[in-house]
Amino acid sequence: MNIVEGLKWRYATKRFDSNKKLTKDQLEYLKDAVNYIPSSFGLQPYKVFVIENPEIRAKLQEAAWGQPQLTEASQIFLFANFTQYGPDKVEQFLKLGAEINNYPLENSAGYRDLLNGTISSLTPEQLSNWNAKQAYIALGALVSAAAEQQIDICPMEGFDKAKFDEILGLKEQGLTSVCIGAVGSRSPEDKNQFLKKVRKPKSELFETI
Amino acid sequence: MNIVEGLKWRYATKRFDSNKKLTKDQLEYLKDAVNYIPSSFGLQPYKVFVIENPEIRAKLQEAAWGQPQLTEASQIFLFANFTQYGPDKVEQFLKLGAEINNYPLENSAGYRDLLNGTISSLTPEQLSNWNAKQAYIALGALVSAAAEQQIDICPMEGFDKAKFDEILGLKEQGLTSVCIGAVGSRSPEDKNQFLKKVRKPKSELFETI
Repeated sequence: MNIVEGLKWRYATKRFDSNKKLTKDQLEYLKDAVNYIPSSFGLQPYKVFVIENPEIRAKLQEAAWGQPQLTEASQIFLFANFTQYGPDKVEQFLKLGAEINNYPLENSAGYRDLLNGTISSLTPEQLSNWNAKQAYIALGALVSAAAEQQIDICPMEGFDKAKFDEILGLKEQGLTSVCIGAVGSRSPEDKNQFLKKVRKPKSELFETI
Repeated sequence: MNIVEGLKWRYATKRFDSNKKLTKDQLEYLKDAVNYIPSSFGLQPYKVFVIENPEIRAKLQEAAWGQPQLTEASQIFLFANFTQYGPDKVEQFLKLGAEINNYPLENSAGYRDLLNGTISSLTPEQLSNWNAKQAYIALGALVSAAAEQQIDICPMEGFDKAKFDEILGLKEQGLTSVCIGAVGSRSPEDKNQFLKKVRKPKSELFETI
């Protein structure tokens, strides 16, 4: 399937068949898509937890109003943003770039100023929103890649983020939870799969000028 | 190419070959990917402008610090969010769902309350950020679909949003610009295509728990 065929096939899976697990190759494929999708300046200002542990997932489910995806899906991809993003992280990023493309770090002086200037001009709330938006691009790639591979996925925002942070000890790591992709295989009992997809007419969504 | 191969092939194209235009089929494919990607509750709280007009694009380029993608790419996809999202739009959405899946609108009473309650609990700024995040999911799908089809794409946030809104008359339409995907074919002269992709090691980006 290509992406468009895959996106027509997929739906927001509420009930997964908990006996069906992704293969190692499927999981690595999804991780590659998330890794290679671009982010602003290439900074990747997030960390992605792939959650398998059943005890942790039972706790997360409680913090997500009991939604069954949290325990029935094969894995939970949780995107978490850095709550602080300062010159130290910019420096790590510049070093990585210089290393991979084999040029002296001194060449990055102008870029360093641009990055640090851009970031320091944002309020903590603006920075948090900017970072979160980058994670949403990656969520879009995760949904696209899952659909292409006929892996079921439910993207989710509806959960208690403060409780998630607490359960996973994210605050201590300078992280905060943003959004989720629950991945696996649909249960034949999930009635949502029989509904037609609801989308605006393309003539309403798009305007060519 | 599958998505992962495509994402490895793509890079942030700065210089497009302005003689190479997407075919009608390529353009419809990208629009389908954007249309079928999910958004929160399925609301699609955005409109997407596909900008071809050279005069308008010259003005947008001025409002984007002269970046060449704005005039050289085949098309500019501009995602714009609704600045207001109230019960009238929720009603349109519910009617569309009832129509497509052929059930009486009365069945949607609980869902109507949930949607209106969720939306009215947000401050205008929170609503704006929530809507914008949905557009970023769609941007992630646009990048993924372009990469899969070997269409070059440059996702962009760096432009003067207030000026874009003015040039395109978005305010009068209750919209505001969010992010861009410039699509087309790379110019052989774009040196960025020869750089290696800079990404964190997967062991740093991901943690399995």
